[in-house]
Amino acid sequence: MTGRVVVAGLGPGAEALVTPEVRAALDEASDVIGYIPYVARVADRPGLVKHASDNRVELDRARHALELAGQGRRVVVVSSGDPGVFAMASALFEAVEAGPPAWRDQRIEVLPGITAMLAAAARAGAPLGHDFCAINLSDNLKPWALIEKRLRLAVEADFAMALYNPRSKARPEGFVRALDLLREACKDARPVIFARAVSTSEETLRVVPLPECRPEMADMRTVVLVGSSRTRVIAREGAPYVFTPRSA
Amino acid sequence: MTGRVVVAGLGPGAEALVTPEVRAALDEASDVIGYIPYVARVADRPGLVKHASDNRVELDRARHALELAGQGRRVVVVSSGDPGVFAMASALFEAVEAGPPAWRDQRIEVLPGITAMLAAAARAGAPLGHDFCAINLSDNLKPWALIEKRLRLAVEADFAMALYNPRSKARPEGFVRALDLLREACKDARPVIFARAVSTSEETLRVVPLPECRPEMADMRTVVLVGSSRTRVIAREGAPYVFTPRSA
Repeated sequence: MTGRVVVAGLGPGAEALVTPEVRAALDEASDVIGYIPYVARVADRPGLVKHASDNRVELDRARHALELAGQGRRVVVVSSGDPGVFAMASALFEAVEAGPPAWRDQRIEVLPGITAMLAAAARAGAPLGHDFCAINLSDNLKPWALIEKRLRLAVEADFAMALYNPRSKARPEGFVRALDLLREACKDARPVIFARAVSTSEETLRVVPLPECRPEMADMRTVVLVGSSRTRVIAREGAPYVFTPRSA
Repeated sequence: MTGRVVVAGLGPGAEALVTPEVRAALDEASDVIGYIPYVARVADRPGLVKHASDNRVELDRARHALELAGQGRRVVVVSSGDPGVFAMASALFEAVEAGPPAWRDQRIEVLPGITAMLAAAARAGAPLGHDFCAINLSDNLKPWALIEKRLRLAVEADFAMALYNPRSKARPEGFVRALDLLREACKDARPVIFARAVSTSEETLRVVPLPECRPEMADMRTVVLVGSSRTRVIAREGAPYVFTPRSA
């Protein structure tokens, strides 16, 4: 039996957003590894071993997956969204690079998924409809100064932006500073979308002009989409549509 | 019968990357509208009317979809990849904004899909594993100077980059200039991934150090991923893994 590691994206939450490719990989897995709430999304069945771990142990989890595959297990490492966007795929390759040479020849596959910003954008209209960037606001692994530099340059480039991990209990201050920076650099009332738990039963979506944005509008389950200077809002009964024109 | 417009992402090519949500929308459609090769991906069945049109008529296509929905049809506008990333969703909302007021109350839904950069990144490892941007290199609808400005600022921000529509027969020169700019601004040998037709039978993937990149490595079916200054290559038998560490 040849082991393997598959790093699979479960999408933002709804089963209807899990690709058939990921579904097939889960059906064939002997072991599923990941952060507790993501592993909980995989149904139990005879022969499937689940290894759920807490947040912030990504490298340990990656090494565990590679060790199990080395023993011939068919391991699926589950991520929310897309595994390549602020998720487990990078941690896995960090472990491969630092690990024993045999890990380089281990069979590894990354299976893409619907990442949070695309699910959120679809709900709002097409706010990422032209050039955009994605920035992780967590400073657990990089200095805050780098985040601020990227936010400033993103405004100067007039990108629409997707801000991941905007705010957590352990990091309440960063998003306060990010919003202050954006208000000062943008100097306009461009729309900001607070999209929480999109495609789950707890989904909420708010469209707020930048000057009226408040830090507490985001939490750790929120992705924040910031329009470019050209992003448009179409008022209508019900939630407005937000889109960035193709010429922006 | 209430009409509606669904803008659906078919993913990069493989059926295994079409979400169940999009599959269900296609099964319920009365009309499918889109660019010829995308409409060709939808199977014929009794009761389904297909409207295939050529490239560069996105606004006409959007208006057609809205008119049909106004007549009570269940219309699916198909895009490759994700409809909100350099695809049909923005064109649809441009048409809504400029069209009759009734179109604002039309039922419209955007269904996300696996966009080309995420499929390509998954094949290569995790090159978009930290902050990144997506830039459309087509200057059909925006000035080339804006593209160059964004490329320069993206290098300064040290984003990994996904470059969409790098080169077509009608625009052979832009990608030459983009590569020259990147070589000059980056001053290093960071990895560049040329991913063509990912997940189809014609898929090719090349990892090339920036100084060795040549314009003819890309065509209109290629997405180009450019590493950040921190992106790593893991050499091994077979194709190397490329990833951007989480601390980048």
